[in-house]
Amino acid sequence: MCQARVFLIKDGTEEEVMKDVIGIEVRPEGLKLKSFFEEPKTVAGEIVEIDFLKHRVLVKPKEPS
Amino acid sequence: MCQARVFLIKDGTEEEVMKDVIGIEVRPEGLKLKSFFEEPKTVAGEIVEIDFLKHRVLVKPKEPS
Repeated sequence: MCQARVFLIKDGTEEEVMKDVIGIEVRPEGLKLKSFFEEPKTVAGEIVEIDFLKHRVLVKPKEPS
Repeated sequence: MCQARVFLIKDGTEEEVMKDVIGIEVRPEGLKLKSFFEEPKTVAGEIVEIDFLKHRVLVKPKEPS
Protein backbone atom coordinates (compact mmCIF):
# COMPACT_ATOMS: atom_id res chain seq x y z
CA MET A 1 0.00 0.00 0.00
CA CYS A 2 1.11 3.50 -0.67
CA GLN A 3 -0.31 5.73 1.99
CA ALA A 4 1.78 8.73 2.87
CA ARG A 5 2.68 10.75 5.90
CA VAL A 6 2.18 14.48 5.74
CA PHE A 7 4.54 16.83 7.56
CA LEU A 8 4.14 20.54 8.15
CA ILE A 9 7.28 22.67 8.35
CA LYS A 10 6.90 24.75 11.48
CA ASP A 11 9.61 26.83 13.11
CA GLY A 12 12.24 24.95 11.14
CA THR A 13 11.10 21.50 12.22
CA GLU A 14 8.77 18.98 10.62
CA GLU A 15 5.62 18.15 12.50
CA GLU A 16 3.55 15.15 11.44
CA VAL A 17 0.04 16.27 10.54
CA MET A 18 -1.45 12.98 9.45
CA LYS A 19 -0.34 9.46 8.60
CA ASP A 20 -1.93 6.79 6.41
CA VAL A 21 -3.00 9.54 4.01
CA ILE A 22 -4.69 8.11 0.93
CA GLY A 23 -5.50 11.33 -0.84
CA ILE A 24 -4.88 15.08 -0.87
CA GLU A 25 -7.09 17.68 -2.51
CA VAL A 26 -5.73 21.17 -3.09
CA ARG A 27 -8.39 23.73 -2.19
CA PRO A 28 -8.38 27.50 -1.92
CA GLU A 29 -8.34 27.29 1.88
CA GLY A 30 -5.57 24.70 2.02
CA LEU A 31 -5.01 20.98 1.68
CA LYS A 32 -7.73 18.48 2.45
CA LEU A 33 -6.05 15.32 3.76
CA LYS A 34 -7.94 12.04 3.60
CA SER A 35 -6.96 9.02 5.63
CA PHE A 36 -8.24 5.50 6.14
CA PHE A 37 -8.42 5.85 9.87
CA GLU A 38 -9.23 9.46 10.66
CA GLU A 39 -11.73 12.09 9.65
CA PRO A 40 -10.56 14.27 6.75
CA LYS A 41 -8.56 17.24 7.93
CA THR A 42 -7.87 20.53 6.16
CA VAL A 43 -4.48 22.13 6.70
CA ALA A 44 -3.81 25.76 5.75
CA GLY A 45 -0.73 24.82 3.81
CA GLU A 46 0.87 24.35 0.42
CA ILE A 47 2.76 21.31 -0.85
CA VAL A 48 6.51 21.77 -1.03
CA GLU A 49 7.63 18.30 -2.03
CA ILE A 50 6.32 14.78 -2.48
CA ASP A 51 8.57 11.77 -2.11
CA PHE A 52 6.81 8.67 -3.38
CA LEU A 53 9.62 6.37 -2.28
CA LYS A 54 9.66 7.57 1.30
CA HIS A 55 5.89 8.11 1.27
CA ARG A 56 6.32 11.63 2.56
CA VAL A 57 4.60 14.89 1.69
CA LEU A 58 6.17 18.09 2.95
CA VAL A 59 3.86 21.06 3.47
CA LYS A 60 4.59 24.68 4.37
CA PRO A 61 2.15 27.10 5.97
CA LYS A 62 0.02 28.80 3.35
CA GLU A 63 1.10 32.26 2.33
CA PRO A 64 -1.67 34.86 2.38
CA SER A 65 -2.87 35.48 -1.18
CA MET B 1 6.75 0.40 -5.09
CA CYS B 2 4.77 3.56 -5.06
CA GLN B 3 5.64 5.52 -8.12
CA ALA B 4 2.87 7.68 -9.49
CA ARG B 5 1.58 8.81 -12.83
CA VAL B 6 1.15 12.52 -13.38
CA PHE B 7 -1.66 13.82 -15.54
CA LEU B 8 -2.19 17.35 -16.84
CA ILE B 9 -5.75 18.55 -17.34
CA LYS B 10 -5.85 20.04 -20.81
CA ASP B 11 -8.95 21.03 -22.75
CA GLY B 12 -11.06 18.95 -20.39
CA THR B 13 -9.08 15.76 -20.86
CA GLU B 14 -6.24 14.25 -18.86
CA GLU B 15 -2.93 13.89 -20.63
CA GLU B 16 -0.21 11.75 -19.08
CA VAL B 17 2.89 13.87 -18.49
CA MET B 18 5.12 11.29 -16.83
CA LYS B 19 4.90 7.83 -15.32
CA ASP B 20 7.05 6.11 -12.70
CA VAL B 21 7.36 9.43 -10.90
CA ILE B 22 9.26 9.06 -7.65
CA GLY B 23 9.21 12.67 -6.52
CA ILE B 24 7.68 16.07 -7.17
CA GLU B 25 9.14 19.42 -6.10
CA VAL B 26 6.93 22.49 -6.15
CA ARG B 27 8.89 25.41 -7.57
CA PRO B 28 7.97 28.95 -8.54
CA GLU B 29 8.05 28.03 -12.23
CA GLY B 30 6.03 24.85 -11.82
CA LEU B 31 6.40 21.25 -10.78
CA LYS B 32 9.68 19.39 -11.14
CA LEU B 33 8.85 15.73 -11.79
CA LYS B 34 11.49 13.12 -11.06
CA SER B 35 11.34 9.61 -12.48
CA PHE B 36 13.46 6.50 -12.36
CA PHE B 37 13.63 6.18 -16.09
CA GLU B 38 13.55 9.66 -17.56
CA GLU B 39 15.28 12.97 -17.11
CA PRO B 40 13.54 15.28 -14.64
CA LYS B 41 10.91 17.40 -16.30
CA THR B 42 9.38 20.68 -15.15
CA VAL B 43 5.72 21.27 -15.92
CA ALA B 44 4.14 24.73 -15.62
CA GLY B 45 1.35 23.43 -13.47
CA GLU B 46 -0.18 23.21 -10.03
CA ILE B 47 -1.26 20.10 -8.18
CA VAL B 48 -5.02 19.63 -8.00
CA GLU B 49 -5.27 16.26 -6.34
CA ILE B 50 -3.13 13.32 -5.28
CA ASP B 51 -4.57 9.82 -5.03
CA PHE B 52 -2.12 7.54 -3.24
CA LEU B 53 -4.24 4.45 -3.82
CA LYS B 54 -4.48 4.91 -7.57
CA HIS B 55 -0.95 6.37 -7.71
CA ARG B 56 -2.23 9.37 -9.63
CA VAL B 57 -1.40 13.05 -9.42
CA LEU B 58 -3.67 15.47 -11.22
CA VAL B 59 -2.17 18.78 -12.35
CA LYS B 60 -3.74 21.86 -13.90
CA PRO B 61 -1.94 24.48 -15.97
CA LYS B 62 -0.38 27.12 -13.76
CA GLU B 63 -2.32 30.33 -13.38
CA PRO B 64 -0.31 33.46 -14.00
CA SER B 65 0.59 35.04 -10.64
